[in-house]
Amino acid sequence: MTSSSTTDGPAGERPSFSLDDVRREGLLAAPGTEAPAHDGTGRVELTFTVEDVDGAAPATRAVRVPPGVTVFDSASWNGIAIDSTCGGHGTCHKCRVRIDGPTPISRHDQRTFTQPQLEQGWRLACLVGATRDLAVVVPPLTTRPKAATVGVGRQVILRPAVQKRYVELAEPDLADQRTDLARLLDAIDDLEPVADLHVLRRLPKVLREADFKVTAVIVDEALIEVEAGDTSAQRYAMAFDLGTTTVVATLLDVSTGTPVAVASMLNRQQPFGADVITRISATMMDPETLGRLQQAAGETLAQLAAQVCREGGVDPEHVYEVALAGNATMTALALGIDPEPLGVAPFVMTADQPPTVLASDVGLALHPRARLICFPALGAYVGGDIVAGMLATGMDRDKRTRLFIDVGTNCEIVVSDGDRILATAAPAGPAFEGGAIRCGMRAADGAIEVVRLTDTVELTVIGDVEPRGLCGSGLVDAVAELVKVGLLDATGRFIPDDMAPEVAPALADRLTRIGEERVFVLYRPHEGADLADCVVLSQRDVRELQFAKAAISTGWTLLLEELGLEHADVQQVLMAGSFGSYLSPASAVRIGLVPQLPVLRIVSAGNVAGEGAKMVLLSQRERAGATALLEEVTYVELSDRTDFNDRFVDQLGFRT
Amino acid sequence: MTSSSTTDGPAGERPSFSLDDVRREGLLAAPGTEAPAHDGTGRVELTFTVEDVDGAAPATRAVRVPPGVTVFDSASWNGIAIDSTCGGHGTCHKCRVRIDGPTPISRHDQRTFTQPQLEQGWRLACLVGATRDLAVVVPPLTTRPKAATVGVGRQVILRPAVQKRYVELAEPDLADQRTDLARLLDAIDDLEPVADLHVLRRLPKVLREADFKVTAVIVDEALIEVEAGDTSAQRYAMAFDLGTTTVVATLLDVSTGTPVAVASMLNRQQPFGADVITRISATMMDPETLGRLQQAAGETLAQLAAQVCREGGVDPEHVYEVALAGNATMTALALGIDPEPLGVAPFVMTADQPPTVLASDVGLALHPRARLICFPALGAYVGGDIVAGMLATGMDRDKRTRLFIDVGTNCEIVVSDGDRILATAAPAGPAFEGGAIRCGMRAADGAIEVVRLTDTVELTVIGDVEPRGLCGSGLVDAVAELVKVGLLDATGRFIPDDMAPEVAPALADRLTRIGEERVFVLYRPHEGADLADCVVLSQRDVRELQFAKAAISTGWTLLLEELGLEHADVQQVLMAGSFGSYLSPASAVRIGLVPQLPVLRIVSAGNVAGEGAKMVLLSQRERAGATALLEEVTYVELSDRTDFNDRFVDQLGFRT
Repeated sequence: MTSSSTTDGPAGERPSFSLDDVRREGLLAAPGTEAPAHDGTGRVELTFTVEDVDGAAPATRAVRVPPGVTVFDSASWNGIAIDSTCGGHGTCHKCRVRIDGPTPISRHDQRTFTQPQLEQGWRLACLVGATRDLAVVVPPLTTRPKAATVGVGRQVILRPAVQKRYVELAEPDLADQRTDLARLLDAIDDLEPVADLHVLRRLPKVLREADFKVTAVIVDEALIEVEAGDTSAQRYAMAFDLGTTTVVATLLDVSTGTPVAVASMLNRQQPFGADVITRISATMMDPETLGRLQQAAGETLAQLAAQVCREGGVDPEHVYEVALAGNATMTALALGIDPEPLGVAPFVMTADQPPTVLASDVGLALHPRARLICFPALGAYVGGDIVAGMLATGMDRDKRTRLFIDVGTNCEIVVSDGDRILATAAPAGPAFEGGAIRCGMRAADGAIEVVRLTDTVELTVIGDVEPRGLCGSGLVDAVAELVKVGLLDATGRFIPDDMAPEVAPALADRLTRIGEERVFVLYRPHEGADLADCVVLSQRDVRELQFAKAAISTGWTLLLEELGLEHADVQQVLMAGSFGSYLSPASAVRIGLVPQLPVLRIVSAGNVAGEGAKMVLLSQRERAGATALLEEVTYVELSDRTDFNDRFVDQLGFRT
Repeated sequence: MTSSSTTDGPAGERPSFSLDDVRREGLLAAPGTEAPAHDGTGRVELTFTVEDVDGAAPATRAVRVPPGVTVFDSASWNGIAIDSTCGGHGTCHKCRVRIDGPTPISRHDQRTFTQPQLEQGWRLACLVGATRDLAVVVPPLTTRPKAATVGVGRQVILRPAVQKRYVELAEPDLADQRTDLARLLDAIDDLEPVADLHVLRRLPKVLREADFKVTAVIVDEALIEVEAGDTSAQRYAMAFDLGTTTVVATLLDVSTGTPVAVASMLNRQQPFGADVITRISATMMDPETLGRLQQAAGETLAQLAAQVCREGGVDPEHVYEVALAGNATMTALALGIDPEPLGVAPFVMTADQPPTVLASDVGLALHPRARLICFPALGAYVGGDIVAGMLATGMDRDKRTRLFIDVGTNCEIVVSDGDRILATAAPAGPAFEGGAIRCGMRAADGAIEVVRLTDTVELTVIGDVEPRGLCGSGLVDAVAELVKVGLLDATGRFIPDDMAPEVAPALADRLTRIGEERVFVLYRPHEGADLADCVVLSQRDVRELQFAKAAISTGWTLLLEELGLEHADVQQVLMAGSFGSYLSPASAVRIGLVPQLPVLRIVSAGNVAGEGAKMVLLSQRERAGATALLEEVTYVELSDRTDFNDRFVDQLGFRT
């Protein structure tokens, strides 16, 4: 039994990571590389040592990612900045890092580095897939990028809505009585913003106290602030992935596209219920609950905002825009919109595109006139988080046939054939989040997240602690491995006790019973321990997982049929969300959660909702792209499909 | 000595009235009319008896106006609705009223009424100039007007920004999962508003509780409310004339253009200083004063808003838009904008066009998302009130050469030759508002407002009380009459004591001294009363008036020169503001406050700021017209003119 631990993030909370499929596939195809194939299971740890440009002591941070994620992404998505201007296509040759130990040398590395440099371990970070634990030295930033790499292989040209302009103005006299505002705006020739009242209230004093040398802060069409002196270097925005369970905040420097700090925590709405339906029900039972849920969401966002500002050393008043990606219910609750119609048929949203409001409207104490933009939603159960995910994965741009799955209590599925895009939602239930599972738990310290069955049971556990339970990825692994070794049959039933020693001699003694129910013991604290102290997988747990995965596979089966596609036509499967990122692609294939494809086509896409939120903060064009998705994607309602139940039963079994 | 009193309005506060010059001149030119000429002095009282359509007891109200104001205007500007669709051009023949006593019969009256009706006193209200006290019976409204008559002869086609649409929507089902908002907006085909968050928060509940039968409330581009059932008849807005001294509120039914209620009160900022400079100084002395002044303005507006809603029987939640016309300082203070640069050279505004904000931003408790629009300003001393006045008087549309004067501590002057428009400000000082005058007082109860000298002294006093002092119009009258009878010479000096009995035998004994200073006794409470108990006009008072009027006449002299015009070219003088409305045209000519023209060319334009505010609420086109004035009018700064002082001295004397 092996155990690994993370050193990043607060105990029990894990940021999500992503695999840049485009670059990985590019790398694997490139001649001269020796990237070892991996089987898509387990985790690798990357320890970054960031050198400071001013010669201060280098900072060290360790992060843990699924194998195959590039070094560049592993850094970038954890707020560690590496030079880049090409967006990770191996062309700018700027993302230079030094890696300890033998590392494959790409064609681009050979063009970029001298032989001695290559021997010292210098590589381009965007072309190194992390397939083992790595120690990486990151040199200080030297470039001011015009683009940033965000999402899954998306290069975003920096054109943020937040703009600053430093101006030095002539002082007024009787021959030049222009208004303060006209004087300021006349000096800014490329933008024509409208001034917020907030600015007019401050403008006369700030102008005169600063000798008419000020920085104008513009968000979209609005002049929201005028600051004394030149503050143009302080230009920040904040991206939120507002999940039902976990909320992630990223503080972004929009001048460079660099994430300054990332933090996550449990949504404070948790006490009102684990999933959206429970929370909607709570608002229907007591009219005051909506206000409480709104407040809980606001407190969550505010606490994270304060944390990332503190960690990034950024004055919250310098954060001028916020993007929020959440499902339809989370978005409605954060805005104080009654979610009841989302929870009952015919599942209607109040609006698909919430208006731009002030960040203070959801309780955020950033710049008082900071804008908050929420992602549009396709339907009550294909919300803004999925639209953000589609943006981050380029579902509307990639010409390949791709399947996007965000696994959770509600599972969203998107299929694109490179032309048409279909989306739907499938009710998977709580199994993937550890709910309704005997030893189920969230992916927190003590959770078994990787299971491998050979002659023994190999477990990977979150945190430096003894196993306490089984999280979603561990559950999928356990079932997949039990099917592989033959202890579970194709229908999902444990094989008879008397056959077990023959099928899997080393593991047969772990197959036992608690009362009437058959269980498989994954972890036993000591020889002879009581079964109540063990982590087990029960027959009922297997059934729960079967129902969950059948709901999902029925969803993508019907969408693929709608487009006239076979399973094998799918060129890439993107597993999104924090669960998707941790899921073993091999196990996902084995239990039938995804089509039966080579594991390399199955990609952990990471926290794509959060990535999409970053993208719209960095680029107004991407923001327009998010809105355009509302027109480009067809929502397919499954709940009134007559063939759903038939297909569902077809999908219950396993491939043995 | 005569005394008159008013029955309208709270004691000590008077709404302002106006003279519709266009129609009056039209009437006088019309054949078959017998309007008696009047000399432009004194007041007339109109008693309106308004019949109710439902047969309730008729309501009676008396208003007092300068002679010559039409019956229609006298009613309309005091919130008494009379049918009209043509805008008062005598063509719609709808504004039928019955007037007691002999009244001139116009050509239009003859076409409209039968001989018995004419004998009963039926007349068209827009064609009767009130040259004597009148009793007027107003029949119930029968038409739903498409236009309203506002300002000075301005007919405004009703196209308010506030729109309501009642819709009955199909309920959603699984085959029609449109969002609540899309469902609503799809049913409104002529408008494409953006929903406020406020609406989204209420929309799901209101739609379902009202069985999907609701009224959408749209202001400009914003959907600000959705109301259960059909509320389309409740569509109100509020116009404010935010004066330094007096604030006037008009509650408007924007469906009909009818004023529902009018109220006025003293600006609660009065304790901080009588004029704008004192109040600006107060903010410079103590940084907390700006907040206090802002609050005082807000309380004034809020109190008036509550009063007109109460009097009009209108729910404040049904008031969706507010227009505010005030000078640059009053507007800045109401919005909480630092006024300091307005008070010191080079007299710079923060912005010429304040942004549209919420009415709640200035402390108004109307609909929570009601919009507040402020008029743009041309300069620190030609503010939004003057732009509103220009709009109300059609300064940019009338092809005649016209002079617009708003008399006050700061006096604004506008000249148009029908093509170019020039505007300036002249510092008249406080004389016209009773300041720096020995027995000066505001136009409140006890103030002498009209003075006529014949064999005796005839006074008109505000309120049913003994004279206590002299307001601006009384001051102008007193000086003009003393010049006329010869007791003041052309230089403004009282003639020697020994000449007085010869020049004005009946009045000579009133010319006496207090200490060294010569005074004229206007009112003596009883024979032998102490001079301290009398109302007198002193030599110094005359000097104050001379300085004030010279500042003003220098202003229009320079503007006329700029346009290459002679005094006699001026076809109309519009006297605006509450003071201008009460000023006797004859006296204004005699003291040289206005060019020497026939009195009929001098028109009391009334509270044109308030009228302009009403216009922008009734018509989006007029609102665009107000903005266009910023481009069309050239502001002329007099304070750096080298020829100002020379001209000023030329203007000090009187025409004898």
